[in-house]
Amino acid sequence: MGPSPASVEIERKFLVTELPADLAAHPGQRIEQGYLAIAPDGVEVRVRRRAGEATLTVKSGPGLLRVEEELAIDERRFDSLWALTDGRRVSKARHELPLGNDLTAELDVYDGAHDGLLTVEIEFPSLEASEAFAPPPWIGREVTGDARYANQSLALAARPPADA
Amino acid sequence: MGPSPASVEIERKFLVTELPADLAAHPGQRIEQGYLAIAPDGVEVRVRRRAGEATLTVKSGPGLLRVEEELAIDERRFDSLWALTDGRRVSKARHELPLGNDLTAELDVYDGAHDGLLTVEIEFPSLEASEAFAPPPWIGREVTGDARYANQSLALAARPPADA
Repeated sequence: MGPSPASVEIERKFLVTELPADLAAHPGQRIEQGYLAIAPDGVEVRVRRRAGEATLTVKSGPGLLRVEEELAIDERRFDSLWALTDGRRVSKARHELPLGNDLTAELDVYDGAHDGLLTVEIEFPSLEASEAFAPPPWIGREVTGDARYANQSLALAARPPADA
Repeated sequence: MGPSPASVEIERKFLVTELPADLAAHPGQRIEQGYLAIAPDGVEVRVRRRAGEATLTVKSGPGLLRVEEELAIDERRFDSLWALTDGRRVSKARHELPLGNDLTAELDVYDGAHDGLLTVEIEFPSLEASEAFAPPPWIGREVTGDARYANQSLALAARPPADA
């Protein structure tokens, strides 16, 4: 479900009003993400661990030049670099839940500094599918494009309202 | 001549008033260094190429926690990441010149944004050797500890005076 630089992604993001009843059937995968440094022009360098796989990623900021380089790092390096991300972290459990119509909800249950925050992201195969989407009752307010819920903002700023 | 985290380095740094006569006998090795991002707490991420070897280095800022992780990267990755360091670069040719008494001068001839700047660094085996050092006539004002001549400052700020 990672971004594919060669294609356009159609994704919508929502807050979650209550955990869906079948959550226990879809155990989450822990994701830890921490920012080492972010330049004024938006270049960001982060480390991430998911399911035992650790990576260091450098990403360009907004602008014409789009660069994203991901380097695999071992556990020792991850631990060493993770220590440098204090105060710039996001950690969460990601649950993937089938929604019907071949759609999958990526439900993120945040912990640490963002404990209590719940968001869900859904990727759509087409603009039509995106517009036709009827959210189940546990899905709340839409926050697509709301920068406050981006990983970088969450890592750097105080926790945004879980619902408002 | 790289830093050795387990030992204390005794180094002095000077400006250079004129290029030494025997410079041509010691061809320089090109060093290109660019900063991807620097965090407010001093964590820095940089890429460097020297003699065809490219690395990405993450370094902690000043403080109790000392971390330095260096990752080898291939040429394609270096080029891709180098593009993100625009405006945060230092490039120079490094010449290593024997000074007698087993001392070596690392003479840096800067180009690009710092064209005209010349510095020299000398590492000493002991404090005594450091204090006894009698600089040859081509070595000028000492700038040991002057933050303006550190790589990070040079990369981020305007060029400091070549001599003042």
